[in-house]
Amino acid sequence: MPDTLIRRRDLSFLLHDVLTVSQLTHAPRYAEHSRETFDAAIDAAYRLAEEQFAPHNRAGDSREPELVDGQVQLIAPVGRALKAFADAGFLAATFGEADGGMQLPRVVANACWALFKGANVATDTYATLSIGVANMIDAFGTPRQRERLLPALLSGRFFGTMVLTEPHAGSSLAEITSSAAPTGDGRYRIKGNKIFITAGDHELGENIIHLVLARLPDAPAGVKGISLFVVPKFREDGSTNDVSLAGLIHKMGSKGTTSAMLNFGERGECIGELLGQPHQGLACMFQMMNEARINVGIASSALACAGYLHSLAYARERMQGRETPDPRSPQVAIVKHADVRRMLLAQKCVAEGGLLLCLHGALLSDLHDVAPSAAERDNARLMLDLLTPVIKAWCAKHGTLANSLAVQVHGGYGYTREYAVEQFYRDNRLNSIHEGTDGIQAIDLLGRKVGMASGGAMQALGAQMAATITEARDVAHLTAAPEPTRAAHWATQLEQAWVALESTTQTLLALLPHEPRRALAHASLYLDTFGHTVVAWMWLRQALAAIRLLGTAQGDDIPFLRGKLAAAHHFFHAELPMAMAAHAVLRSLDPALAELDDAWL
Amino acid sequence: MPDTLIRRRDLSFLLHDVLTVSQLTHAPRYAEHSRETFDAAIDAAYRLAEEQFAPHNRAGDSREPELVDGQVQLIAPVGRALKAFADAGFLAATFGEADGGMQLPRVVANACWALFKGANVATDTYATLSIGVANMIDAFGTPRQRERLLPALLSGRFFGTMVLTEPHAGSSLAEITSSAAPTGDGRYRIKGNKIFITAGDHELGENIIHLVLARLPDAPAGVKGISLFVVPKFREDGSTNDVSLAGLIHKMGSKGTTSAMLNFGERGECIGELLGQPHQGLACMFQMMNEARINVGIASSALACAGYLHSLAYARERMQGRETPDPRSPQVAIVKHADVRRMLLAQKCVAEGGLLLCLHGALLSDLHDVAPSAAERDNARLMLDLLTPVIKAWCAKHGTLANSLAVQVHGGYGYTREYAVEQFYRDNRLNSIHEGTDGIQAIDLLGRKVGMASGGAMQALGAQMAATITEARDVAHLTAAPEPTRAAHWATQLEQAWVALESTTQTLLALLPHEPRRALAHASLYLDTFGHTVVAWMWLRQALAAIRLLGTAQGDDIPFLRGKLAAAHHFFHAELPMAMAAHAVLRSLDPALAELDDAWL
Repeated sequence: MPDTLIRRRDLSFLLHDVLTVSQLTHAPRYAEHSRETFDAAIDAAYRLAEEQFAPHNRAGDSREPELVDGQVQLIAPVGRALKAFADAGFLAATFGEADGGMQLPRVVANACWALFKGANVATDTYATLSIGVANMIDAFGTPRQRERLLPALLSGRFFGTMVLTEPHAGSSLAEITSSAAPTGDGRYRIKGNKIFITAGDHELGENIIHLVLARLPDAPAGVKGISLFVVPKFREDGSTNDVSLAGLIHKMGSKGTTSAMLNFGERGECIGELLGQPHQGLACMFQMMNEARINVGIASSALACAGYLHSLAYARERMQGRETPDPRSPQVAIVKHADVRRMLLAQKCVAEGGLLLCLHGALLSDLHDVAPSAAERDNARLMLDLLTPVIKAWCAKHGTLANSLAVQVHGGYGYTREYAVEQFYRDNRLNSIHEGTDGIQAIDLLGRKVGMASGGAMQALGAQMAATITEARDVAHLTAAPEPTRAAHWATQLEQAWVALESTTQTLLALLPHEPRRALAHASLYLDTFGHTVVAWMWLRQALAAIRLLGTAQGDDIPFLRGKLAAAHHFFHAELPMAMAAHAVLRSLDPALAELDDAWL
Repeated sequence: MPDTLIRRRDLSFLLHDVLTVSQLTHAPRYAEHSRETFDAAIDAAYRLAEEQFAPHNRAGDSREPELVDGQVQLIAPVGRALKAFADAGFLAATFGEADGGMQLPRVVANACWALFKGANVATDTYATLSIGVANMIDAFGTPRQRERLLPALLSGRFFGTMVLTEPHAGSSLAEITSSAAPTGDGRYRIKGNKIFITAGDHELGENIIHLVLARLPDAPAGVKGISLFVVPKFREDGSTNDVSLAGLIHKMGSKGTTSAMLNFGERGECIGELLGQPHQGLACMFQMMNEARINVGIASSALACAGYLHSLAYARERMQGRETPDPRSPQVAIVKHADVRRMLLAQKCVAEGGLLLCLHGALLSDLHDVAPSAAERDNARLMLDLLTPVIKAWCAKHGTLANSLAVQVHGGYGYTREYAVEQFYRDNRLNSIHEGTDGIQAIDLLGRKVGMASGGAMQALGAQMAATITEARDVAHLTAAPEPTRAAHWATQLEQAWVALESTTQTLLALLPHEPRRALAHASLYLDTFGHTVVAWMWLRQALAAIRLLGTAQGDDIPFLRGKLAAAHHFFHAELPMAMAAHAVLRSLDPALAELDDAWL
């Protein structure tokens, strides 16, 4: 049976041959680990994703969560899959042994989690949110909160949610009006209506731990007056907290995950505890949101991988058309048609290039914790901050477009619910919206991130790319073989793309303080171009690893590695040049969007 | 209430101010018509679409056709809407008075039909297929077939279908194996299994007339051995024909239209009649397919218009964020945010530019029939043949992307089934697949159309664009006002785009006879670039009409016309330059896709 999630070989290639994650085992935290233990975790995830997650992906879509007698009912395999996930240790994958965890680096854990997302993103979401809440409790909780909640969350007895959005406050969290009044015993009465609460209600565990953004009575206006609260569905004494389900939201995709409207404190009896410091709620929550943004990138890329492999399998089976006009010549599988190959290679570029970018981000997060020197740790943090909006928005947008190509490869069959790809296309569409829309990410990138550290983040990223470019040229100098020569060409293209991006960045940053609206009108196109540039870097890195390995490769590894070079060629030849056209558009600093009279629309 | 289908003013602008369709009233066939009668038809369509089609669009999606006791059940409003459509004369809109028709030009009829597609594409599809079958009977039927079927089809008593696809023969119609054996009395026994039969079964009328592709016993292999048959669900004597419903297909969108698997002649008793000449079935069917391809373009553009107007209305109501960082400044509607305007203008460019391109195609079809001279009639036919694949594929692809932007403008709400836009996005996705996938259209364009008449079609199209370019320069010479000056710039951009397209076309056509696989590997990107060029032409034409009218415009017409200029600016500034980057990619004639070893994928 062909791989249909993410190729097992590809995960190994990305982790070991490109990112060399074994470097992390030099850090004391990961000293007990080895390439073998990493691989064993991935193998376990692979089996579990295939056996427990993928089989009910369609059922979760066609039989949405239902409200029956006030309780949310999910199809049975969801609970079984999540129990198996917890039992296999994947909730606690990154937690230390002291907490019963596998103590895996985030990059390896994310590679594991990617498989569950590719198999069944709706079911995986319940787990992902619990992990996020566990991380928040770990980072900001009191010893008592930690003790009470962490074992329950990491074992799957309790589940978690992020409760940010209110009907009138989506992208603009400054508008949040939910309130928290001190009860006098160190706790708070929470009151407010929240919407789009993913996994907001269900019967999967013993309890649900909501992390709720609300304002204390003395809170300043805006984002600096928001605090964070732990609000359980069931209180510590077992009584039901005053959190009521006002309704389930029916979505285009990701239907298996409940999305709820929740009313907190309708009877004035919703009790919560502060998490972290007063008025620091959004700063705390940003830890979870940044993590969630990497998760979104991983989910989109994993769905793009799944769509790619499903459509590839279909293209290899489906006989249609001929290679010559003679009707007596034999029919061929559609994978022989150039236009089908174009759609497959374009998917491969996005799926595998995007996944590497996400794993690169996860590795930066590890290096921020465990790199040997403070300078390396700071640098990793800076890189991750810079790349997070790109990882989130580029992968979401292009991952969904890749899934559209997967549908197209299937022709009419792809539009039916008999095939998996139409669901990927719908499920993936959420990723450009939640955890900050693509537009919000773009404003974050251009408005905050590229100017960070007086441009130091961009310089550091440029230095890392330059190292890859030098490596490519060195490889080309050693041999006259065609592949290294092509890699040297790609290196030159990447260098030009980076120079152009730096110049465009300077032009936009120069305008930003004077005419922020006009500058930020260019943010989305800027992020897209930025994304193509860093994904080009990811493809050059993959190409160099493939060239290195091809010297001694045998058997199935040869076509695998050749495929990496074919995709690199496609990206540098057909995708990057299209994106380069954006620089002229961006540098014109066209004021039209900012100045438009909206009555003309 | 704001317009939510297609702006009424816009239809008037496109038909009268840009296309000057009143020119058709000089032809004897349309001499009884006038601008007033055209407008009256559109007003009637507008009311009917709003009152009878739009209201059940969501219900048709959420309550799919069901098989109950062997019968297909649709929700009740579908039948009521189609009856009202027939009663108002829209089935017979283009038919002559002798057939009880309105005798409208196709361009005006298509403007009417666009409204029904924008309101409810699933319900409209039943009508569209009936009209297509009526046109086929009209063109190829015997007097007796015409007499028996036409009045029934045009009054909505009978419905129609196109029955082409077989499970193993989708894009490759040459593989069709359905057979037709003479019964001896001039009729045929039909046998074969067909799939993806839109409107293939239902209880909306007294009968369903299937137009079925099948092979006669002596038929040559390939597409030249396919004949066309009229196969009714109920025979003339009232008995049930041997056409059995093998199942309904469940789709991602357009759910209100049944898509059926039909088995013909399971009991050997499926009786049909030949339509047209033996072995000429595909040639006949191409009349219907070409018409259907324009319909697809119209449907995609109408859905893009509807998505644009829905998201515009939302953006004007939804308060979120501020124009300054001060949290005490008032919140603004999101239409004030530059990135939202970008998403709205991008939709407007595709929706209104695409719709004009489709209506331009419909006008060519009229001119092919009624233009004064034979040269003009031939030229119109040549232009329509050339543009048909572009109309179909460019509008389908970009219309669906526009609907994705409509979802994005709505944020989280756009992903829910509470808002119309998510359905547009799913419904529209079909349009890149049916009636020949986008890839098939691209091969048609590059492989057949651009080389037609020894390049004469391209020359004629270039001459028409040149006339618009000259007009733009003449307008600019008359005044120093900013708008005409900008139009002259756009004219220069269009001229450059056309020169580049001609050159790229020559490069690809030179390769085509020698290395067809390598040349056709570029077909999809070529079509996309071709589409951007002709849509740029459409925007220049709209800009010139807007400039002309702005001299005397009053009231609401001023922002409407300014909006046309803002969209033209956006298209020429931000969209066309991105598409121009394709020329270098295309001219490289990269052999990689054609030569790729598919084991590497």
